[in-house]
Amino acid sequence: MNEIGLLEKVLPGLQQHPSVYLGPGDDCAALDLGTDRLLLAAVDQVVGDVHYLRNRTSPERVAAKLLKRNLSDIAAMGGEAKWALLALASNNPADEWFTAFYEGLRLCAEKYGISLCGGDLASLPSGKTAEVGSLTILGIVEQDCICLRSGAVEGDLLMVTGQLGASFETEHHLDFEPRLAAGRFLAESGFARAMIDISDGLLLDATRLGIASAQAIQLDVAALPLRANATAAQALGDGEDYELLFALAADSFDDLVEEWPFDFELTCIGRFVSGKPGDILDNDNEKLTENYKSGYEHTSK
Amino acid sequence: MNEIGLLEKVLPGLQQHPSVYLGPGDDCAALDLGTDRLLLAAVDQVVGDVHYLRNRTSPERVAAKLLKRNLSDIAAMGGEAKWALLALASNNPADEWFTAFYEGLRLCAEKYGISLCGGDLASLPSGKTAEVGSLTILGIVEQDCICLRSGAVEGDLLMVTGQLGASFETEHHLDFEPRLAAGRFLAESGFARAMIDISDGLLLDATRLGIASAQAIQLDVAALPLRANATAAQALGDGEDYELLFALAADSFDDLVEEWPFDFELTCIGRFVSGKPGDILDNDNEKLTENYKSGYEHTSK
Repeated sequence: MNEIGLLEKVLPGLQQHPSVYLGPGDDCAALDLGTDRLLLAAVDQVVGDVHYLRNRTSPERVAAKLLKRNLSDIAAMGGEAKWALLALASNNPADEWFTAFYEGLRLCAEKYGISLCGGDLASLPSGKTAEVGSLTILGIVEQDCICLRSGAVEGDLLMVTGQLGASFETEHHLDFEPRLAAGRFLAESGFARAMIDISDGLLLDATRLGIASAQAIQLDVAALPLRANATAAQALGDGEDYELLFALAADSFDDLVEEWPFDFELTCIGRFVSGKPGDILDNDNEKLTENYKSGYEHTSK
Repeated sequence: MNEIGLLEKVLPGLQQHPSVYLGPGDDCAALDLGTDRLLLAAVDQVVGDVHYLRNRTSPERVAAKLLKRNLSDIAAMGGEAKWALLALASNNPADEWFTAFYEGLRLCAEKYGISLCGGDLASLPSGKTAEVGSLTILGIVEQDCICLRSGAVEGDLLMVTGQLGASFETEHHLDFEPRLAAGRFLAESGFARAMIDISDGLLLDATRLGIASAQAIQLDVAALPLRANATAAQALGDGEDYELLFALAADSFDDLVEEWPFDFELTCIGRFVSGKPGDILDNDNEKLTENYKSGYEHTSK
């Protein structure tokens, strides 16, 4: 199943009510509640032996990953995460797996102040053993704060939080901290003019930012903040970094560096330039997607 | 997996923020938005060969069932359904299955005025073929309209819409109409003092209404509105009726019958009485759950 191609086929046909401020195609949907605050909503899944190795990953960590993936989407909109609903399909005969999963989810929800307010359990047919968990996250963001993928203009800097690459090998994809506080800071301060979280790989997610903002991007591969032992190719293509990628007005760079209150890195890795929207170019204006795999879609591991 | 037992184990441990007006344990969660309207949220799943027969049920009908199950939960709270998010895990190699599923969902969403505003697609590991779809429904209800499972008092009548039993054999579980308009009518008019939708079988769902309202229920089995060819045992235990079961003040019966604007049945099938909360008694005060299976949980078909 080619997710991107399929979605391009079906999404344009969906009718959206005027109350849908922002529909499919960003990290979250944003829904108009008739007040100055928008409701953010997103859903994400974890599937056994696709998003984690069933024989190596504890249910507690799987549950935490599922919630944190969704929190990262709220962070990318500059929002505050509030409520979550869980759907879990399993035929794991061990109640211990389930109670451990739920305990991991409970602890992670408490850590981030999320109320797990609803859910559904279903059985899988006998003989099917891969659990499927899906979690819907709901949050709130002020209309004048929300960060969309669109909004970058020519000359803006492309900035990234933290480090990139080798997420799976280092178990960063399980242990990461969603950048909720950084997302709020970048949204409330107005520094982020467009934002996305890196879940499917820098190249693919930067392309999305470029397309939504109708800009090309010149990327400085030598500037990429690499996770220990990661290569530039991994930083560009691996995915599951759950870092924030955002557009910053060039003349705000010094202010942001001075005001940055977090202990993780903040790096300028490129610039929005004129060109075909979504093209990612290197310093010689060669298309980077020609030399590196163009991003990451989850397949069986 | 025993859903009810497991949930009883984990749900009490979940911390709910004060903004959670109503947490797990009713048809929807209700979330306080700081206005006079509450956000309703629920999630439900369909699993191939559990909730439908994969070799007999078109993807369009599966998708419509998934949305309508969720709409039935909004109806049971007296709410207005507005937005939905879909998570789908599949390794069906045929894009046709997926596009047909989405088309069915689109048409059903348009019919009921729902905006499908977000979603996620995931692959299942190779060799696993049962699709898992989960859908989160979001809706709105005025705080002074919301119908909870609690609220029935001794002497109230137990009322049901439509007909019961043999839902699977008759394909009612695919073709049903969620009782959105009836739910709104019963909530806005104030007729329904407590309400639930019948998804897991009359006996089990009536028990839930009784427990939440701290009442026993005397049920008149002879009065059950049976679907064609259905037995009383099927009406009591089968589930997937997606009808509304609600408490009505006895002295409002005539008014409700007079004002009832719908062309489907409305039947009094019992009465809330003093006794052990959740007990369902027959006309001889014998516990009905001794003679009939006590409700329905989805298992592989």
